[in-house]
Amino acid sequence: EHIPYRADVYPQEEMIARSEAFHMMMQKRRTVRFFTDRPIPRTIIENVLYAAGASPSGANSQPWTYVVVSNPATKAEIRDIIEAEERINYERRMGDAWVKELRILKTSWRKPHLETAPYVIVVLRQLYGVRSDGSRKNYYYTDISVAISVGILLAGLQNVGLVTTTTTPLNAGPALRKLLQRPANERVMLLLPVGYAAEDATVPPLRRKSLDEQFLWV
Amino acid sequence: EHIPYRADVYPQEEMIARSEAFHMMMQKRRTVRFFTDRPIPRTIIENVLYAAGASPSGANSQPWTYVVVSNPATKAEIRDIIEAEERINYERRMGDAWVKELRILKTSWRKPHLETAPYVIVVLRQLYGVRSDGSRKNYYYTDISVAISVGILLAGLQNVGLVTTTTTPLNAGPALRKLLQRPANERVMLLLPVGYAAEDATVPPLRRKSLDEQFLWV
Ligand SMILES: Cc1cc2nc3c(=O)[nH]c(=O)nc-3n(C[C@H](O)[C@H](O)[C@H](O)COP(=O)(O)O)c2cc1C
Ligand SMILES: Cc1cc2nc3c(=O)[nH]c(=O)nc-3n(C[C@H](O)[C@H](O)[C@H](O)COP(=O)(O)O)c2cc1C
Repeated sequence: EHIPYRADVYPQEEMIARSEAFHMMMQKRRTVRFFTDRPIPRTIIENVLYAAGASPSGANSQPWTYVVVSNPATKAEIRDIIEAEERINYERRMGDAWVKELRILKTSWRKPHLETAPYVIVVLRQLYGVRSDGSRKNYYYTDISVAISVGILLAGLQNVGLVTTTTTPLNAGPALRKLLQRPANERVMLLLPVGYAAEDATVPPLRRKSLDEQFLWV
Repeated sequence: EHIPYRADVYPQEEMIARSEAFHMMMQKRRTVRFFTDRPIPRTIIENVLYAAGASPSGANSQPWTYVVVSNPATKAEIRDIIEAEERINYERRMGDAWVKELRILKTSWRKPHLETAPYVIVVLRQLYGVRSDGSRKNYYYTDISVAISVGILLAGLQNVGLVTTTTTPLNAGPALRKLLQRPANERVMLLLPVGYAAEDATVPPLRRKSLDEQFLWV
């Protein structure tokens, strides 16, 4: 009962051109921490998310829950939760070496962009599944599966000219999960404010590893 | 010394169209396990990989090493390693529940496509960095960072009409690492044969979770 799979096949010249365009597009992606509050039609966010939801996953578990917050009051509550934890993270938990490494990013515990950005996407990972009778279903490779899905999401955002700040809200997970009333089998993995970059947005001048350091040909 | 960031901004109608096209494209993606040996110009694989290498990463660690194998002898050795381990996985390690769940995929320990596909990409994760003086540099969120990068890679492959089998080579990591002579700070995370889908490729008819199960709007 398998079904035929027909890939979209392109002539070789077109494949090369498409691969170059994709490379150029993704090369321009940066983690942006300055947003405008310009609204974004929900259909755009839906399409990009639905693409992420079509990702592969270990044994087809699809172990992600995407909570998309646009309600200003909830965004403000998320900001409060994150700032309270990030303040402790920066001042105590992360340690000197980590904080020093982050200095070039000019990040801090202050996160006003969590209210400015029109959407804040909370990415949750399901540790296990729950059947209709309440019993648990084992899931495999949930971290990798959800993060692959987020990679597709990031490509989709870049493709429409939107930006995000990929962040792992260290220690803020439980409070976020409570705020959003998510069940016991879910854990917050990433927090992604999404919007247009501010006109005067800046990014740190980061070093990229050389191609030789990243890619080997055997 | 931050630098200005200028996003590619599109008119709203174009954003909607681009988001729909991306959704349609990624919706067609499937994990394909049947390849042809038709050659692929290396420049296409390079472009898609370079896009993946421009991914975000925890504290800019870029903790991935992509080993791209096209040499037939090395592909054959990889196949031997994987088949030996997968045979034990299927027969003993995975357990009945897991194997039963995989039945619909019609997968087995046999992996001929690891030789048929023109490229086999071994994705390694760096547990920590190594400075030029040999000392260790802490890396953070390496799993998530590498998997996000792989998500971008999958979008790039789909964009040129190529397919892959996203696989986690359970227990075969150490032997693969030895074969490819990778250092002690690296772990094999995924194995991705890449090529054109076979003309008669089939895929299992899988259930996708409903949009309501995956996405919540607050
Ligand atoms: C982390 C991860 C591990 C996977 N491991 C395997 C594997 O070892 N063997 C395999 O045949 N497929 C593997 N898959 C593919 C899944 O079975 C597949 O994505 C899932 O069944 C959904 O099908 P689709 O990708 O065609 O939508 C893996 C996928 C992910 C994301
Ligand atoms: C898993 C992960 C966690 C991250 N966590 C944070 C974070 O907590 N705060 C932040 O400002 N940036 C965070 N980032 C963004 C990285 O700092 C950024 O990707 C890296 O510095 C490279 O910059 P670029 O994305 O502009 O290329 C994270 C990125 C990843 C992939």
